[in-house]
Amino acid sequence: MADRYLEFASSGLGGWVVEALGLPKPAPLLRRAEADAGPALPLLLGPSADGRMADVVGRVTAASGVAVHAEWTPDVRYGALVYDASDCLSVAATQGLYRFFHQAIRSVAEHGRIVVVGAPPQTARTAEGEAIQRGLEGFVRSLAKEARRSIAVQLLYVAPGREDAAQSTLAFLLSPRSAYVSGQVIRVEAAGVAADPSLGHAGRHVLVTGAARGIGEAIVRLFAAEGARVTALDVPSAHDELQALAREIGADPLALDITAPEAAGVLLQTARARGGFDVVVHNAGITRDRTLGRMDAREWDSVMAVNLGAPLALTRVLLEAGLVRRNGRIVAVSSLSGVAGNMGQTNYALSKAGWIGAVDRLARDGLTHGITVNAVAPGFIETRMTAAIPFAVREAGRRMNSMGQGGSPVDVAETIAWLAHPASGGVNGQVVRVCGQSLLGA
Amino acid sequence: MADRYLEFASSGLGGWVVEALGLPKPAPLLRRAEADAGPALPLLLGPSADGRMADVVGRVTAASGVAVHAEWTPDVRYGALVYDASDCLSVAATQGLYRFFHQAIRSVAEHGRIVVVGAPPQTARTAEGEAIQRGLEGFVRSLAKEARRSIAVQLLYVAPGREDAAQSTLAFLLSPRSAYVSGQVIRVEAAGVAADPSLGHAGRHVLVTGAARGIGEAIVRLFAAEGARVTALDVPSAHDELQALAREIGADPLALDITAPEAAGVLLQTARARGGFDVVVHNAGITRDRTLGRMDAREWDSVMAVNLGAPLALTRVLLEAGLVRRNGRIVAVSSLSGVAGNMGQTNYALSKAGWIGAVDRLARDGLTHGITVNAVAPGFIETRMTAAIPFAVREAGRRMNSMGQGGSPVDVAETIAWLAHPASGGVNGQVVRVCGQSLLGA
Repeated sequence: MADRYLEFASSGLGGWVVEALGLPKPAPLLRRAEADAGPALPLLLGPSADGRMADVVGRVTAASGVAVHAEWTPDVRYGALVYDASDCLSVAATQGLYRFFHQAIRSVAEHGRIVVVGAPPQTARTAEGEAIQRGLEGFVRSLAKEARRSIAVQLLYVAPGREDAAQSTLAFLLSPRSAYVSGQVIRVEAAGVAADPSLGHAGRHVLVTGAARGIGEAIVRLFAAEGARVTALDVPSAHDELQALAREIGADPLALDITAPEAAGVLLQTARARGGFDVVVHNAGITRDRTLGRMDAREWDSVMAVNLGAPLALTRVLLEAGLVRRNGRIVAVSSLSGVAGNMGQTNYALSKAGWIGAVDRLARDGLTHGITVNAVAPGFIETRMTAAIPFAVREAGRRMNSMGQGGSPVDVAETIAWLAHPASGGVNGQVVRVCGQSLLGA
Repeated sequence: MADRYLEFASSGLGGWVVEALGLPKPAPLLRRAEADAGPALPLLLGPSADGRMADVVGRVTAASGVAVHAEWTPDVRYGALVYDASDCLSVAATQGLYRFFHQAIRSVAEHGRIVVVGAPPQTARTAEGEAIQRGLEGFVRSLAKEARRSIAVQLLYVAPGREDAAQSTLAFLLSPRSAYVSGQVIRVEAAGVAADPSLGHAGRHVLVTGAARGIGEAIVRLFAAEGARVTALDVPSAHDELQALAREIGADPLALDITAPEAAGVLLQTARARGGFDVVVHNAGITRDRTLGRMDAREWDSVMAVNLGAPLALTRVLLEAGLVRRNGRIVAVSSLSGVAGNMGQTNYALSKAGWIGAVDRLARDGLTHGITVNAVAPGFIETRMTAAIPFAVREAGRRMNSMGQGGSPVDVAETIAWLAHPASGGVNGQVVRVCGQSLLGA
């Protein structure tokens, strides 16, 4: 990232603009591959060492060799803060939240993690309790904007009795795998199928569409590295890249246009041959950007078909044939454009916002056998697609987030791998942004 | 608005930045006071002249003397487009949406209005139907970003059978009163109390807190101008301004600190003397901005008490005493900070996000007698408070929205007046941003 931005930010007028927009100065993220394997910094747990999250925090930290402190100590650098605000149900009770973070926030090390745990607002018995629990969103999103230094901050709503089901999520949020996820609100509310959080994706059957390059390639590589059997699907025109990738990592290539008339038949046949899929990742997507007045009908139709129509139809076909297995996962790749809209993307934003509705519907209907349906919404991710964006627009996209940089395809893949984890059955119907807390939104 | 921004945008480096951020070139909005009283431009209604919204559109346009066209005609300039997408329940059906707007979008006049009507996504019978209805959000938010020329674009979900209840909302969205509201999603789902949409606020008893200046003053002035009996409440230290304002417009001043121990008693006494309130506007709010590590406990506590604790307590007291009258309205002033978080505003954002939770709760619980509870979330509004912001930050705040300018206090007041209207009982539990479609969000 040879950084014209830094030059700009150091100039007179540039400094003015950077300050005006509150843009951060970027520092490279530490992801799983780059994370230091040295002694891990301790985690500070508040407000109480024996709260409802203590067991889960204990298991997560034990697995990663992290010490848990119950008392803030000056001069200690903490790798993470976890604060259970579930009992914070009145304006007066927020003083505890204030005191904890007022004291501890500057003790968090670079690349640290902060997780505020709440109870789903609707579970509060009073309007004031619901107001405070919902208000935590504003608190966390503000803290995430303040934290800087590549510190990620999230709000995790855990329904009463679902503490154990939150383990895989807490582990993800405290790990380097969530480096580009910040300012997010995640709910663990579903019962899901109980599964050992120490299990990985080994032996799971995974289908990834749009697999030949970019984000799809990263997803395929990650699942394959974790021992999954991956079916890597992409359009016939990507045949060579797909073959090369599949050969390199031992995946099964499937050259198929998901909008073709024969797509459902071919996919069913493949699924049956595998004995069904444990994980289906709808990553295939295209853009045909143009303002609506200039967009032609084909540009509209093709985006709608590839991004929404075909994957919805294939999902239905697989579910109806029982080819999504017990404790299965469906994960769609939505987009920040679907959340906030974007100039020149009426078609794309409709298709991506459509997935937010589809995820909500399928999760609400309650699929059988513990199957969950979630989406990720990437922000600015560095791919061949974004490399083609004009320099200035690309730079702006990179900087307008709390991490001050674009994400990597692996950040999206890691987030999908968490949602797809056998022990993540408590997370259902969620849309998680992978955007470094982009300033953009709705 | 002597415009350093325009100079900046015209310079070499400035042009680069403006283009990179997709910032619009501002053109002054036309509000109620400035709107041309000349012959109104026609409204184009699609896709069908006898759809479920036809009657309501007919009544709204008849009241404002606007002709309704059912067919797009080249060379006609339209003042508004209304498209009923309620039946758009499949990917194939979106082609009609595309064709209508592809053709008509460039026929919309400056300061025009676009309203897409949908059905609440949850009412769709299929997952695909829900996906498309939810997807309209992405479409509308994109179109709002493309439209420019001070054109406002909204998505209006009208539950089946609630078409008549949508009249006051449609009238607002098609009028100059909504000049600074764009990219919003509004639901008309509640039964509410039937009321004549041609009625105004004449004779209604209205309480406004934080009334002495800024947004509060604009709210007081608007309700008073419409013939309401307004109780204008503000802190004792604002006594002189409050008295002067009250005298000028014939309001009843009430100097009271809402966090004082005697506040509930005084307010009850006042409310009883008036025979109760029809409308309660919780506008009082303070900021004590500081990053959390530097914020002192008093800065935390005072913001939480003034912005959330006291108004919640007073709401409860008034409701329990039956002093919010039949078909009454409670409207809180939340904030974009509550939606998206903001650096240096952990306290403020918690309090303002808290109102989003409170509104949701009170609406969900279903208050008696047709009382509704809603919130507005202002973006960058030009007040004495924002005038004190350093120039560069202020300029950025002004520009980062689809209108390319800050809003006026009257924009917030107009939005509150719509929500508070006797015929707006179908709108309940909503948070409507008054931000010119600020790019910022969550």
